[in-house]
Amino acid sequence: MTNDKQTLTDAQVEWAMAAALQEAAIAGSVGEVPIGAVVIHDGEIVGRGYNLREHAQDATMHAEIMAISEANRTLNTWRLEDCQLFVTIEPCPMCSGAIINARIPEVYFGARDPKAGTVRSLYQLLEDDRFNHRVTVHEGIEEQAAADLMKNFFKAIRQGRGKAKPRGGQKL
Amino acid sequence: MTNDKQTLTDAQVEWAMAAALQEAAIAGSVGEVPIGAVVIHDGEIVGRGYNLREHAQDATMHAEIMAISEANRTLNTWRLEDCQLFVTIEPCPMCSGAIINARIPEVYFGARDPKAGTVRSLYQLLEDDRFNHRVTVHEGIEEQAAADLMKNFFKAIRQGRGKAKPRGGQKL
Repeated sequence: MTNDKQTLTDAQVEWAMAAALQEAAIAGSVGEVPIGAVVIHDGEIVGRGYNLREHAQDATMHAEIMAISEANRTLNTWRLEDCQLFVTIEPCPMCSGAIINARIPEVYFGARDPKAGTVRSLYQLLEDDRFNHRVTVHEGIEEQAAADLMKNFFKAIRQGRGKAKPRGGQKL
Repeated sequence: MTNDKQTLTDAQVEWAMAAALQEAAIAGSVGEVPIGAVVIHDGEIVGRGYNLREHAQDATMHAEIMAISEANRTLNTWRLEDCQLFVTIEPCPMCSGAIINARIPEVYFGARDPKAGTVRSLYQLLEDDRFNHRVTVHEGIEEQAAADLMKNFFKAIRQGRGKAKPRGGQKL
């Protein structure tokens, strides 16, 4: 589950991932792929984000990018060295890179993404000594809830009940 | 130099990288690490960006992210399938991931970044078949000019003539 110690209490972890799942649910409710993230500092949420790619028509609008950027604004620094990031699904290369760039020392995620995940699935970017920053990874936090949100979303899309109107040929 | 064909003329490549170098020079002139990027569509610049991490205090404010996000707004789509991205220095994991997420088919870069580059140096993320998108990479475009901007910037920093005021212990 983890490659190192956990700095938060189990109750804090449960609470923070519940907040990330809430963000994911908001994304799903507007027809976006339901992925959510929060950044925690001193036990408080300083950044929130959910996937908003379709509504914003912006490829960079992933949950983690939005949460990190908001945390940067909240704390008025690009360095999130005393923060923890929670995200419902394993980060992609862009978001893994943003975590490294923001110097976030600890990441908690729910379910793996075998197609694009670069924390454990395709690569282990956050644990690569060659970068000037390493991250402690905790996975499987509320894994079933995170995976269920995704499963139900794509099931609804397949059944034509999705609220989003993906463009032709779009791979969600 | 490349793993596939080049869709632009040599004159277009020269012009577009000159524009990216201009962006990089702007970053350097305000004390930011001098990296610049442009996105080209139908032979025109639809997105520009330069590294603005310190001024914005935002870890996601890399040249490529800004250029991609602006191109998304200009073209009103997150899919940059008919675009080319030019960047003076080899992209980091975050920016490599953004290129994949935006489905940019062709990337031109100047000089390699042996410490954080993930297009050729540490990883070859853009050419990994496991992602649902592959990118044609051209490297070494105006390599010396791109590298000189960086070299002169860090030389000035070491000599105490840098305009930026990096925080204590910051690794630029």
